[in-house]
Amino acid sequence: MGINLVLGIDVGGTNTVFGLIDKEGKDYLIDSIPTNRTQPAEDLFVRLFQKYNQRVKELNLEFNLVGIGIGAPNANYYKKTIEYPPNLNWGFVEIEKIIGKFFSQPVALTNDANAAAIGEMYYGAAKGMKDFIVITLGTGLGSGIVVDGNLVYGHDGFAGEIGHTVVFPDGRECGCGKKGCLETYVSAPGIKRTVFELLSKYNYESKLRNLSYSELDAKLITDAALEGDKIALEAFDFTSKILGMKLADAVAHTSPEAIILFGGLANAGDLLIVPTKKYMEEYLFHVFRNKVKILKSELNEGKSAVLGAAALIWHELNKQ
Amino acid sequence: MGINLVLGIDVGGTNTVFGLIDKEGKDYLIDSIPTNRTQPAEDLFVRLFQKYNQRVKELNLEFNLVGIGIGAPNANYYKKTIEYPPNLNWGFVEIEKIIGKFFSQPVALTNDANAAAIGEMYYGAAKGMKDFIVITLGTGLGSGIVVDGNLVYGHDGFAGEIGHTVVFPDGRECGCGKKGCLETYVSAPGIKRTVFELLSKYNYESKLRNLSYSELDAKLITDAALEGDKIALEAFDFTSKILGMKLADAVAHTSPEAIILFGGLANAGDLLIVPTKKYMEEYLFHVFRNKVKILKSELNEGKSAVLGAAALIWHELNKQ
Repeated sequence: MGINLVLGIDVGGTNTVFGLIDKEGKDYLIDSIPTNRTQPAEDLFVRLFQKYNQRVKELNLEFNLVGIGIGAPNANYYKKTIEYPPNLNWGFVEIEKIIGKFFSQPVALTNDANAAAIGEMYYGAAKGMKDFIVITLGTGLGSGIVVDGNLVYGHDGFAGEIGHTVVFPDGRECGCGKKGCLETYVSAPGIKRTVFELLSKYNYESKLRNLSYSELDAKLITDAALEGDKIALEAFDFTSKILGMKLADAVAHTSPEAIILFGGLANAGDLLIVPTKKYMEEYLFHVFRNKVKILKSELNEGKSAVLGAAALIWHELNKQ
Repeated sequence: MGINLVLGIDVGGTNTVFGLIDKEGKDYLIDSIPTNRTQPAEDLFVRLFQKYNQRVKELNLEFNLVGIGIGAPNANYYKKTIEYPPNLNWGFVEIEKIIGKFFSQPVALTNDANAAAIGEMYYGAAKGMKDFIVITLGTGLGSGIVVDGNLVYGHDGFAGEIGHTVVFPDGRECGCGKKGCLETYVSAPGIKRTVFELLSKYNYESKLRNLSYSELDAKLITDAALEGDKIALEAFDFTSKILGMKLADAVAHTSPEAIILFGGLANAGDLLIVPTKKYMEEYLFHVFRNKVKILKSELNEGKSAVLGAAALIWHELNKQ
């Protein structure tokens, strides 16, 4: 039989990463293939399992595959479907049926932020916690909410969309069609929009004045802030204020022990975490004050999504 | 042995109601005593159990008391304590210890909005639902959030304070010390504050212009709205807009099947529910649209809190 391993798969807009992971989070194999977003979903999984089989042969390891965990955009945990993902030409895809053509093992599926939350609980900053929230800060703002040791899926499988709560009812246009959503302020594009607003408002000198909207990104804003650039620093302060305010709202819902920040913008570390914590405390209802930690993810960014996807299966098996 | 019954107790600021309730929600005894808010907690329970014993003797019914469920302000489910309730001179009270002097049966304790949520799940509008939210609209706005069939307590036992999420960061003063909390807009005093804002803003004729701030209440505003008073109607519209917006935020957290409105202001019925539903849909992230019901409580208002408190025990026994 050999060791028990899970195949974790993280479906991204550009690349799809997969890996064989044991219960302690050790990876025995990590590889990736291009997602080819214009092709049907089945094409991706055919190519993925071909490469997987080839790599498993080379690996020459005796193991027992206990399940397949998948993190993907617009994934529905209950129905095991991916439904009209914004960056892939897939429409409505019945994932379990597709995987079932290749494997008889159990399949578990959720969105990337939920997978990240389970990953943090098993292998990262939320080890030992039963109530916490993971916020992923990338091109959008994703969230995975854990209550009493389980992910909150809600009645339809889509719970945890804090990125689309409202900050300013007539605020910035969001990709989702609404206005003023949290992710239009707090995300990599969000802080860029804030920089452009501040550049128009103030006369401070700033090296960011030499960059076009297309050129600017969160990394350049972080670097400028670390060099003391006033516009960049103010952009982080504003971003932190909005995030702190909405995290206080999130705490009022599920009262987590910690909120864990993950992904691109979270790499700014104390630039974001220290003021976010300060503002969150200001907006918190008094019973929650000085109780809720804000932590940086402890998962290796390259492997985190696959670890989370694999942990989904370990978590399902734990529940039985 | 006889029938199995739970003693439900609802501790209010003025009166404390208690009752013997069976698993189907039938009450065999309902009575109340004055809370006497300036006296210590133990005084209340001594008087309550004296009256309970006397009433039980008169009842002349063979029954088995399986537990004591309590709904109370600032109640902590995990610690079985009541902590500095705003309207009672109690400080920090270890409820389980006090009850233990009189009864050996298990004790369960939570705040009144959470008790209302469990009551709706067992006996009211949320029968058969696993994911829903109850919003209580009285002198404040309370909330009880149910996920996958269980109340969300959070890591500290205080989850579900949607009334203190922020609407306008520099908005109306809240009793909690913050500004712009949801309950300063959506509650009986909240709609009164809105009427006064509208009276100052517009020149419409309104019978509400003849009432002082001290005289006006939610019932008078509801009556005026039903008679077509423009200020009163606009106050309901504004209240519904704010509530709809924040319920959309709540849906983005836990994706409930329904939101159930309970208490004073909810008695305005369609005046509140129809526009709240319309505004909520506008602010909802697209995946949640046309899925979430807004319902009026189906519990008898006089008995609802006691039913909820009793259901707490039935729910605990169900989990075992």
